[in-house]
Amino acid sequence: MLILQTVNELKEWVRDTKKAGDSIGLVPTMGFLHEGHLSLVKKAKAENDKVVMSIFVNPAQFGPNEDFDRYPRDLKRDQELAEGAGTDVIFAPSVEEMYPRESQIQLTAGAQADVLCGAKRPGHFDGVLKVVTKLFHLVEADLAYFGQKDAQQLAIIESLVEDYNFPMAIRRGETVREADGLAKSSRNVYLSGAERNEAPHLKKALEMGKELVLKGQDPIEPMTKYLTNHTSGVIDYIELLDYPTLTTTIRQNAILALAVKFEKARLIDNIIFHPKGN
Amino acid sequence: MLILQTVNELKEWVRDTKKAGDSIGLVPTMGFLHEGHLSLVKKAKAENDKVVMSIFVNPAQFGPNEDFDRYPRDLKRDQELAEGAGTDVIFAPSVEEMYPRESQIQLTAGAQADVLCGAKRPGHFDGVLKVVTKLFHLVEADLAYFGQKDAQQLAIIESLVEDYNFPMAIRRGETVREADGLAKSSRNVYLSGAERNEAPHLKKALEMGKELVLKGQDPIEPMTKYLTNHTSGVIDYIELLDYPTLTTTIRQNAILALAVKFEKARLIDNIIFHPKGN
Repeated sequence: MLILQTVNELKEWVRDTKKAGDSIGLVPTMGFLHEGHLSLVKKAKAENDKVVMSIFVNPAQFGPNEDFDRYPRDLKRDQELAEGAGTDVIFAPSVEEMYPRESQIQLTAGAQADVLCGAKRPGHFDGVLKVVTKLFHLVEADLAYFGQKDAQQLAIIESLVEDYNFPMAIRRGETVREADGLAKSSRNVYLSGAERNEAPHLKKALEMGKELVLKGQDPIEPMTKYLTNHTSGVIDYIELLDYPTLTTTIRQNAILALAVKFEKARLIDNIIFHPKGN
Repeated sequence: MLILQTVNELKEWVRDTKKAGDSIGLVPTMGFLHEGHLSLVKKAKAENDKVVMSIFVNPAQFGPNEDFDRYPRDLKRDQELAEGAGTDVIFAPSVEEMYPRESQIQLTAGAQADVLCGAKRPGHFDGVLKVVTKLFHLVEADLAYFGQKDAQQLAIIESLVEDYNFPMAIRRGETVREADGLAKSSRNVYLSGAERNEAPHLKKALEMGKELVLKGQDPIEPMTKYLTNHTSGVIDYIELLDYPTLTTTIRQNAILALAVKFEKARLIDNIIFHPKGN
């Protein structure tokens, strides 16, 4: 496995790989890998000749009062995990390498960013768009892999690729969970022991909400009550929307999504399902 | 020469061309070709295995009161000229083919769009960014060619490519002029006979202004006076800026640019030079 830290090294590798006729799968991450990331790598490995994983904690997608500085990082451990899962190249650039100067041109997410996490994290998805556009261009990937746990991010990136005819496709990876149902997340390490015990109730609330939706009932109030009773966290949002349009009129697939703030970690989770039953 | 009208046909051609190992040069145009466009094709032909010319009058870059509907079009004549200059493929899509749905994600030009034409045509360069990003992705060009006559457009597109690491480079083409100095433009056909006779004074005003700058004098007032005396047009702007940053602090290269509104055509022109002498 190669570990590249500069744009020029990466571009050279991409040029050689393309010349050899090999296809490239990209798994963009912020590192501190868990099985969610590794499942994307395995999916990428099965569908491409070469797999590039980017590891970059992207300052552009963190707000001024968010956890950029204390976002967990462990490149040495990440390298071992990435290699074990079949990664061919890790691209782990510095902030200066990715953003050598202030951008003149801005990318802005549309109405899809006005709900869920976007409503609570202004500019977050614009920062995501900035970094993934750069990564898509640098890696010249044929396929790029994103997990459904960040469902809003996934929907917005799919819009980006479609709106601007990127010569590539997006692949969705299912949310990977702990045995008790908690969605894997790099931020789970910031849960206290007691919070970790409460956290599986997020998934339980989603399942309960889904059953209500299937019965034609409004899930929001019962879920709010359930989470308030079963966790010490503060509910940031619970929303039921169409997926991937993220509009309130549900057409084909529904997403039921929530965010809960614990002491040192804000957790998100969602389920996507056919509102008339699967 | 191939004439392709759909995204799918183009993508298929690009895939085959890439597979054959051929490099691709792209000349984006709005058609109604003149020697300025053709000089870009010739430059592209010399530097690439294949040359794609796009012909697309892009509604996204026209304001509501601008000349989208009456922008001159003549695809048959364009085909002959393009082929004569060495074009391999014309991509001439419909508006529906380029914009099948409203975009979710927006591209916005920065401070570079706040001066010159950008100040007079709000949203114009955002529309340019939208179409060129789509074309760059569709054609997967190695090199794309833009004329220096649209100097602000060129500068903004160079920022786009640099900010977002597009896997390609931009080539600049010098402004091509009539024998009397008038910059070639598709819109010149809308000049009346009298206006056509006055139009070469735009270039003369620029040359006069350049001489004043080289002597350390302010060119704006004398140029304004000159154009007012020698043309019936209304001056839209005359500006002296750094190039390509388009800031007011001139560092390396200066651009002296102007726009003059005639009865049915708004003409632009500029010269770029070293402010301490070439």
